[in-house]
Amino acid sequence: MSTHMSHLSGLISAPFTPMNPDGTINFSKVPDVVNLLIENKVKGMFVCGSTGEGPSLTTEERKELAAAFVKAANKRLLVFVHVGHNSITEARQLAAHAQQIGADYISATPSTYFKVDSIDLLVQCLQEIAKGAPSLPLYYYNIPALTGISLDMVKLLEKAGQSIPTFAGIKYTAPLIHDYQACVNFDKNKYDILYGTDEMLLGALATGAKGFIGSTYNFVAPLYNALIEEFKKGNLSEAQRLQYISVEMVRVIVKHGGLRAQKAMMKLIGLDCGNVRYPLNPFKENEYKLLETDLKAIGFFNWVSKSKEAVAS
Amino acid sequence: MSTHMSHLSGLISAPFTPMNPDGTINFSKVPDVVNLLIENKVKGMFVCGSTGEGPSLTTEERKELAAAFVKAANKRLLVFVHVGHNSITEARQLAAHAQQIGADYISATPSTYFKVDSIDLLVQCLQEIAKGAPSLPLYYYNIPALTGISLDMVKLLEKAGQSIPTFAGIKYTAPLIHDYQACVNFDKNKYDILYGTDEMLLGALATGAKGFIGSTYNFVAPLYNALIEEFKKGNLSEAQRLQYISVEMVRVIVKHGGLRAQKAMMKLIGLDCGNVRYPLNPFKENEYKLLETDLKAIGFFNWVSKSKEAVAS
Amino acid sequence: MSTHMSHLSGLISAPFTPMNPDGTINFSKVPDVVNLLIENKVKGMFVCGSTGEGPSLTTEERKELAAAFVKAANKRLLVFVHVGHNSITEARQLAAHAQQIGADYISATPSTYFKVDSIDLLVQCLQEIAKGAPSLPLYYYNIPALTGISLDMVKLLEKAGQSIPTFAGIKYTAPLIHDYQACVNFDKNKYDILYGTDEMLLGALATGAKGFIGSTYNFVAPLYNALIEEFKKGNLSEAQRLQYISVEMVRVIVKHGGLRAQKAMMKLIGLDCGNVRYPLNPFKENEYKLLETDLKAIGFFNWVSKSKEAVAS
Amino acid sequence: MSTHMSHLSGLISAPFTPMNPDGTINFSKVPDVVNLLIENKVKGMFVCGSTGEGPSLTTEERKELAAAFVKAANKRLLVFVHVGHNSITEARQLAAHAQQIGADYISATPSTYFKVDSIDLLVQCLQEIAKGAPSLPLYYYNIPALTGISLDMVKLLEKAGQSIPTFAGIKYTAPLIHDYQACVNFDKNKYDILYGTDEMLLGALATGAKGFIGSTYNFVAPLYNALIEEFKKGNLSEAQRLQYISVEMVRVIVKHGGLRAQKAMMKLIGLDCGNVRYPLNPFKENEYKLLETDLKAIGFFNWVSKSKEAVAS
Repeated sequence: MSTHMSHLSGLISAPFTPMNPDGTINFSKVPDVVNLLIENKVKGMFVCGSTGEGPSLTTEERKELAAAFVKAANKRLLVFVHVGHNSITEARQLAAHAQQIGADYISATPSTYFKVDSIDLLVQCLQEIAKGAPSLPLYYYNIPALTGISLDMVKLLEKAGQSIPTFAGIKYTAPLIHDYQACVNFDKNKYDILYGTDEMLLGALATGAKGFIGSTYNFVAPLYNALIEEFKKGNLSEAQRLQYISVEMVRVIVKHGGLRAQKAMMKLIGLDCGNVRYPLNPFKENEYKLLETDLKAIGFFNWVSKSKEAVAS
Repeated sequence: MSTHMSHLSGLISAPFTPMNPDGTINFSKVPDVVNLLIENKVKGMFVCGSTGEGPSLTTEERKELAAAFVKAANKRLLVFVHVGHNSITEARQLAAHAQQIGADYISATPSTYFKVDSIDLLVQCLQEIAKGAPSLPLYYYNIPALTGISLDMVKLLEKAGQSIPTFAGIKYTAPLIHDYQACVNFDKNKYDILYGTDEMLLGALATGAKGFIGSTYNFVAPLYNALIEEFKKGNLSEAQRLQYISVEMVRVIVKHGGLRAQKAMMKLIGLDCGNVRYPLNPFKENEYKLLETDLKAIGFFNWVSKSKEAVAS
Repeated sequence: MSTHMSHLSGLISAPFTPMNPDGTINFSKVPDVVNLLIENKVKGMFVCGSTGEGPSLTTEERKELAAAFVKAANKRLLVFVHVGHNSITEARQLAAHAQQIGADYISATPSTYFKVDSIDLLVQCLQEIAKGAPSLPLYYYNIPALTGISLDMVKLLEKAGQSIPTFAGIKYTAPLIHDYQACVNFDKNKYDILYGTDEMLLGALATGAKGFIGSTYNFVAPLYNALIEEFKKGNLSEAQRLQYISVEMVRVIVKHGGLRAQKAMMKLIGLDCGNVRYPLNPFKENEYKLLETDLKAIGFFNWVSKSKEAVAS
Repeated sequence: MSTHMSHLSGLISAPFTPMNPDGTINFSKVPDVVNLLIENKVKGMFVCGSTGEGPSLTTEERKELAAAFVKAANKRLLVFVHVGHNSITEARQLAAHAQQIGADYISATPSTYFKVDSIDLLVQCLQEIAKGAPSLPLYYYNIPALTGISLDMVKLLEKAGQSIPTFAGIKYTAPLIHDYQACVNFDKNKYDILYGTDEMLLGALATGAKGFIGSTYNFVAPLYNALIEEFKKGNLSEAQRLQYISVEMVRVIVKHGGLRAQKAMMKLIGLDCGNVRYPLNPFKENEYKLLETDLKAIGFFNWVSKSKEAVAS
């Protein structure tokens, strides 16, 4: 029986994995990435996730990278280590490693090769993973658009909560706000249900979201912090205006290919994290200018100026 | 070029089609349905849509029913007639009929047999339909979960707005609040983008929604009107509480089979609209009690009491 | 309980609906279409189906067209009338009309708006449709790629066979040859399971198929008749060679947009059936030449020469 | 530019990974698995694939297992090592290892987390993997039902053949026989296109297939060898009868849960390979009897008797 109590709030960023031109990890950039997030009042990091191209890294790389992030964080912000893997055995080993290096939480997607088709089977897999890290709270990573697995999350809370002592909630990356709200409200708001669709943050916030995990907090966290602030003050139209900048930004990102464009944006804001690794489609040299032009047109760079200073310092 | 200016706000209900035990339409019940909506401060009706089982009716039935609703409304609330059909030719004829009987608006889903795969082709189909009703504002009915067609709605606004004089907006039934917001904000909020996922109303409302079309406004419009009111007053937690009742209600509806259960709920609130027609799965006699029990457990009937009086009077 | 005994073999063609430049049906061309099929030793016709753009026609047009085909056939080849419709009530009326005009068989797709999700519900819908034509054998039209409905066809045979006296089999348009074989072998080959993926005819033939319904029999029936002949004679490599021409032809068709290109091919073989109607994408004037070039490159016109003579005569 | 020439024919079996009750690999059983295949005239093995639960194993386990199979094979049958992985870097390392241990071929599925959406990107990923094993022929593993990736395989042959020297063909596990034939016929049958849907073997065989990779060859290879023999002799109805036994067997397998039931069947034929590992759903003790009963009813055990002797000896 999980004894978790929800407590997380604010922005948690899923950092990119800095890479060298030859595709290896550029560990020397890890502290810069972390410092930029702290400078921008981000509360936590979700490392080796989708944004960090976790599934494209080797297990050894994932371990080394997680350790580097934990070290760079140095307790200044919370660290979630994503341990999801097609091999549940490797996921469990990654979980054990995360606990060993002093991470704060673990999170896991389900296998995307063989797909679980019931909550019971999903819970059994999560149980297996949780055994690797008996001291770390575990968050299920629900992202149907990437995993193809879309199960009833309320039922997951019911069953995982009963059988996994460390079960702590869900990283919820899907647009179903109603299902999301049902999870938030479950058992007197017992679990942390961290919302993961940045471009819908305002809708989730109004419906009860407290914590948010996303990729665009890497470059425009100030925008989202302002949005949350304005909403809390009751300045709804200003909150809507800020959310709309995020919506336009995400349209630009999608136009330029999604995650590959987001990583390119790190270079544009002055913290070059290199290119994406296969199977993602590497960003081409001539694309940067086109991307920059589209981003300028929507005022994107007004929101990342502080970040540039942070990087410079 | 569309000269439309957005102006719609509040709840628009998609009424059920009252049916006799033999499956024919029970026209005598139409005025009761309309009066209940007026009593509950619903601003408009969307007739012959998904909730009204429009696609399951014959073209003759659709015409006769639309006329009955327009007559019963008697200008007391706005009437949208859904004219979508696998045959664009029939859709155009339905549009012409809607104009002839004095409907206020038309709306159309795309064909669900042959599926359009580009905005250009969708706009050409809508143009064809619009020719049938040159005086009526036309709303595209976007409901990917039922049609399987999920195109970029911002591009639709761009292109339909240029080539269809009567183009007026979208009935937007999908959870993508970010895409929804992009439509709302398009061209200085020029179009009416009517949100259609009742159980996510609060999220859409916070993000800029003004008007809402849905099926659950048939029985608990007071709940949603209160929700909107509380949100506007700044009582966010009360608005969240009310939305959560809606979320729980929709979970009960889904558990009992969706639309078939919703029509059964009309009987439970005292305005029996009969059963659904094939290809929907008729509700069985023994299911009503089970449904009622689940609804009682979440306080559903507290929100429809006024409705019962309205029906009784 | 169905008393059907399988008896159909050979090619059954799904004719295009001849249309005038303004999009109305060109009834004067119907006899030409029929005569060409007879000349090419086609055994039957499947009218108002997918190829005939049945779902894009009005109910009145479907009735008038079916009657025109039955009249033109004049017992020289078998006529299936497709009666599938989103409205089961209209499907039943179309079935009644088919019986009245002297069609040989009816066939129906399920509704594509509201989708049945169980064999039981599908059988109930087919029962309803069958009531309209108590004298005509009924074939379920299984085409998941267009309807989105993919149920277990063996279970359909079990249940429809028990409860629908006129149930006669399946028009099976899907690549699952194993499932197809299970249907063919069901209850000692009781039902006609007509295979509908022309470009896989040889595989189905080898596995036990007797009858075939398809769209490419409209222009290259001689190719397929030769293929069947060679296979029966044991000339496997020649049968493979002929099938490969069909495969290459279908690749050309897909490249040029599918059904819209097929209808254009009728013009190229000398029996102009006009253009497709919305929601299909009309073929553009400049596309004909490109299509013809691609078809010439694979020797397509060697197989339709007889057809041209037939049309000329 | 690939210089490959097609040369493979006959049955290639994808062996199960023998596991101990605690879920670790039971390496001691590997020789038994290999010997049974040789006894049953299987020509090759596809190890660490879907049937072998390759994606569920750790990278270390995959390496050790591949080595054990190569050693047990001892040149008596060909060994394909599946190296597909969400991490292209790990896939490349697995490829290098396969070459080092003396495997005959490598094969790879694409990543199933981040999904390639173009042939160009897929070819780039395969190129990267191929670099790990410059001496081993590489087969793309096309299995859309598991990977969710369905690209044009003819275009893959065009582009991979040009840019990957070791590119050798496709393990084609999909029902699209027409697309399959287009691949077989490509560039004068240059590549080995190994068909992977056992229950459709006859259809593929008639259309030109020479080699087959599948999971059911683990227990009933004699059935398929007889089928191929009878077809070559011109005994079509006998070939159909044998294929139908396979079809019925696969229906039983699907009914009992797919891969998990197949692994259980190894125990039933006398070569216990243990249970499946998470995320597959472990077979329960009480399920064996039910599975056995269903298999007996279709005469399954008549075709595996030789296998039992082989195991006993």
